[in-house]
Amino acid sequence: MIDLYHAEPVANSLKVLLTMKEKGIDFTSHYVDILSFEQHEPWFVAINPNGQVPVLVHDGEVITESTVINEYLEDVFPAVPLRPEDPVKRARMRFWNKYVDEYVMNAVSMHGWHRMVRRIASAIDKDELARLLARIPLKEQRDKWATVAGDSFTEEQLADSKRKIGVATKRMDETLQRQQYLASEQYTLADINAFAHAGGTQFMFPDLVNEATVPGFIRWWREIAERPGTKAALAMPNKVPEKLRTFGVAL
Amino acid sequence: MIDLYHAEPVANSLKVLLTMKEKGIDFTSHYVDILSFEQHEPWFVAINPNGQVPVLVHDGEVITESTVINEYLEDVFPAVPLRPEDPVKRARMRFWNKYVDEYVMNAVSMHGWHRMVRRIASAIDKDELARLLARIPLKEQRDKWATVAGDSFTEEQLADSKRKIGVATKRMDETLQRQQYLASEQYTLADINAFAHAGGTQFMFPDLVNEATVPGFIRWWREIAERPGTKAALAMPNKVPEKLRTFGVAL
Repeated sequence: MIDLYHAEPVANSLKVLLTMKEKGIDFTSHYVDILSFEQHEPWFVAINPNGQVPVLVHDGEVITESTVINEYLEDVFPAVPLRPEDPVKRARMRFWNKYVDEYVMNAVSMHGWHRMVRRIASAIDKDELARLLARIPLKEQRDKWATVAGDSFTEEQLADSKRKIGVATKRMDETLQRQQYLASEQYTLADINAFAHAGGTQFMFPDLVNEATVPGFIRWWREIAERPGTKAALAMPNKVPEKLRTFGVAL
Repeated sequence: MIDLYHAEPVANSLKVLLTMKEKGIDFTSHYVDILSFEQHEPWFVAINPNGQVPVLVHDGEVITESTVINEYLEDVFPAVPLRPEDPVKRARMRFWNKYVDEYVMNAVSMHGWHRMVRRIASAIDKDELARLLARIPLKEQRDKWATVAGDSFTEEQLADSKRKIGVATKRMDETLQRQQYLASEQYTLADINAFAHAGGTQFMFPDLVNEATVPGFIRWWREIAERPGTKAALAMPNKVPEKLRTFGVAL
């Protein structure tokens, strides 16, 4: 029995959906409506006390954190391998996973929240929003919501995150100009992670991330977008309008 | 041929030294004097462009990031296992590794820098310090040095990091009151990571982290401190005086 609790095929939810679809794993999908704050409902917090998606429940065992879930899926369902056999390449995969988790994700997330989540927060009645925010389990998540519900991030914070996105896409591009995928010539969990978190930067910052500035990165993104597993993952329910998802940039 | 570039047996350097000693791996130790900014010297940046220790060089392959290095050592030298065979327990280990890397490490590091690294910065001539800071490859590291060389972190930042240390040690304690180690009944890379980063919090904040507040955590720390591998790792060269390392608290 495999149950996956997930939101839209975006960011961390997309990351696990990509792995599931790529490996062809059968699972019961539980859509958690994060636009309605369902991830902080008591029934969900009973599954993941942090109140965050995605969550995998496999034979009663709860696994959280998308990077951890993906390595778990690799350990349990190795038939379609997404992790290199060679230990050095495996280390390269984990290096990139760490880089996306610790450097890229928060920078992209800040702009995503600033552009998209802020609109959600502003559409909610003030008292209702206060009630919704009060029950968020993690202080860091409460603070993030309070920030976008208020004056949002500062210009300085937004500029620094944009700078980081520039550094990160350039760094990935350097690797992707000399080899097909991030860790090696094999498609791995590192590519899945980077695609899910950094793939949208070309729509967010077309001036910074484009064919001329990072050709290897764009080539890599296009190839991954064409994979049947990617198409299947992206076809999962999505309540966010396409225009918002691509920040108004036509695909 | 295994070469390890490392600093004092503290934090990330300790983390890899613990794994090496626990597994009984023979290696050539290269002490990098971070108190003299040796990690930013051109010869070292040629090995790790980020200018950070520890770095493992195995048969010419450079592996960076202590969490990645430790999983690599596990992949290559599995004889003394520090990673569970069971995929669920393995996921628990990776969950804790991520928790220490992303939540605990920076909180502890801020106080370590505030108390210890600041004294180093203040002892250096201003022009020389400016020269040393200018060559730090990572902007985030340059900023951190500039902060402790200046007015240091704000009271608010320090208080929030102390709060996080309280949350984290409580969370570990809950697990360690019901089982011997963080991921399972087996000593794993998660314990090594948490010991290296959070072990010193009892000396940093004896009011917050002690036998009465987190008995499971203290029991766990004492048991790990007694392991021959731990003693061997802690016996590696250390230029930081004991009194500074334990923040004036007698062991």
